[in-house]
Amino acid sequence: MLSEFDLIKRYFAHHSAPDAMLALGVGDDCALLNPTPGMQIAISSDMLVSGRHFFPDADPFLLGHKCLAVNLSDLAAMGAKPLGFTLAFSLPEANPAWLEQFARGLLSLADAHQCRLIGGDTTKGPLNICITIFGELPKDSALRRDAAQIGDDIWVSGSLGDARLALAAYWKEVALSESDHQRAAQRMHQPTPRIALGIALRGIAHAALDISDGLAGDLGHILERSGLGATLFVDQLPAGSVLQQQTLELRRQFTLTGGDDYELCFTAPASRRADIIAAGHTSNTPVTRIGQIEAATGLRLMDDQQQPIRMTLHSFDHFSTP
Amino acid sequence: MLSEFDLIKRYFAHHSAPDAMLALGVGDDCALLNPTPGMQIAISSDMLVSGRHFFPDADPFLLGHKCLAVNLSDLAAMGAKPLGFTLAFSLPEANPAWLEQFARGLLSLADAHQCRLIGGDTTKGPLNICITIFGELPKDSALRRDAAQIGDDIWVSGSLGDARLALAAYWKEVALSESDHQRAAQRMHQPTPRIALGIALRGIAHAALDISDGLAGDLGHILERSGLGATLFVDQLPAGSVLQQQTLELRRQFTLTGGDDYELCFTAPASRRADIIAAGHTSNTPVTRIGQIEAATGLRLMDDQQQPIRMTLHSFDHFSTP
Repeated sequence: MLSEFDLIKRYFAHHSAPDAMLALGVGDDCALLNPTPGMQIAISSDMLVSGRHFFPDADPFLLGHKCLAVNLSDLAAMGAKPLGFTLAFSLPEANPAWLEQFARGLLSLADAHQCRLIGGDTTKGPLNICITIFGELPKDSALRRDAAQIGDDIWVSGSLGDARLALAAYWKEVALSESDHQRAAQRMHQPTPRIALGIALRGIAHAALDISDGLAGDLGHILERSGLGATLFVDQLPAGSVLQQQTLELRRQFTLTGGDDYELCFTAPASRRADIIAAGHTSNTPVTRIGQIEAATGLRLMDDQQQPIRMTLHSFDHFSTP
Repeated sequence: MLSEFDLIKRYFAHHSAPDAMLALGVGDDCALLNPTPGMQIAISSDMLVSGRHFFPDADPFLLGHKCLAVNLSDLAAMGAKPLGFTLAFSLPEANPAWLEQFARGLLSLADAHQCRLIGGDTTKGPLNICITIFGELPKDSALRRDAAQIGDDIWVSGSLGDARLALAAYWKEVALSESDHQRAAQRMHQPTPRIALGIALRGIAHAALDISDGLAGDLGHILERSGLGATLFVDQLPAGSVLQQQTLELRRQFTLTGGDDYELCFTAPASRRADIIAAGHTSNTPVTRIGQIEAATGLRLMDDQQQPIRMTLHSFDHFSTP
């Protein structure tokens, strides 16, 4: 059996050599960061629990990817550049094959974003993974949830709903071909954090967040914190490539309420439409205009004929769902 | 049933109002910190798992205290001043009475150290608490594990072994009177992070760490990373007030290997003895000189008659213990 220190060393310590930003990494009581003068530090923590956020038999490579991706996505939603992260996890057993794959999935995504593992903690227990991530951004440039303004366009990156569709297929709520299921499942297992887009939107977008629990519910947080309302053009929502082939009703339901997409939803003045489209190009990320911020509170859903749609929306909540 | 957002808001959000250091707290994708120019950020993550780090029926007030205390202790061991922390936890159920007590224990210690809750995540699952803490300290003043030097004195704060003694009494390995058991258990449940001492030791001590797994094993990390060895004066080790009344053998075993003490072990040149004692006074923390750093690697144990002691030492390891 590997000891706690062996575990950290063997799979993760190679990744933690000090550099200019990182004065001290894994292996001391604390890691030490040297902040860049004039920059703010953005910080986010996410905990992923076996059986709730992922299947107990999840592929460890994909799981490693996803754990970091959801945290990178929080940085993207603020417009922050990744610096590093801490990893604390409990494991039922120290399985070397599992750990090696988990570390590969995690660290390959970390490398792609130059985001360093700077500290950690391992313990025995039910599988539970907690990552705290650090990024930086120029002072007062953060894309906050409370910054939407009346008349702003609402935009979304990439496409929505395929992750939820994959889950529906696992649950046998819908039938998908094997290849469609795999394609949709990739959106669930390997979300793409929109870091480059988030950085490109600094100074252009007003409010932003990442969609983890479903567009309607997450947009609701922007509306609530900004004290405003919105109309969404439901049939303009960019459905994932597999979801596109499903019924109108399913498309609407899953683009509006499907969780696990990790796309950015953001607002910006109509005068900046060309800049938004340019930011999408430079960051190689599709962007779609999907609605409008309004003074009247509440969320209104509109179809292609400008007619209101009545739907019951269920956002994902870890304590309210069965 | 409370929703995830309600939970965070009701028990924790009052604590997260922005101030000069904290540009944005709980409720957005990330918290934002404004680093003080010229300072480094110290970061540490600890995960506490039910049934391993605490009893499943642990008093939630004491548990809240302990979860933050062990993280503050990591800051103390670097000489860092606390700034803030994130709290991610999974809970089997959203029990308001439990949460209220947990928050009280956690936030009262946070207030005492002016350490703000800046972000969090809650989810449903086996009870698991992950805190990531942030502190700051002047550049190049950190008390690192790899900085011990030949001839350094070895010091320890406070007293050792009562937490381990309380555990031994729970396990019926030793018999204690009810009042002794309660007194020892307080050391296990409510460790005192040695923040003021850590700060007072900046520029005086060479190496430092906090004792979580037992003095002998933890000092071993300083020795390994510094490439040196040491002699410990075993009968000089300051036993806790309850452990003092136990047999010599138990005193030696538990002061050397008892975990959960969260005292600081640090090294400093013999020329700074008066400064160390002054640092103990200004921080209102007892300090005891317990050994010496030497060139020959390995840890040697010496009794009051300068005779070597032979003992089998078992350090605590989450994966190696049954």
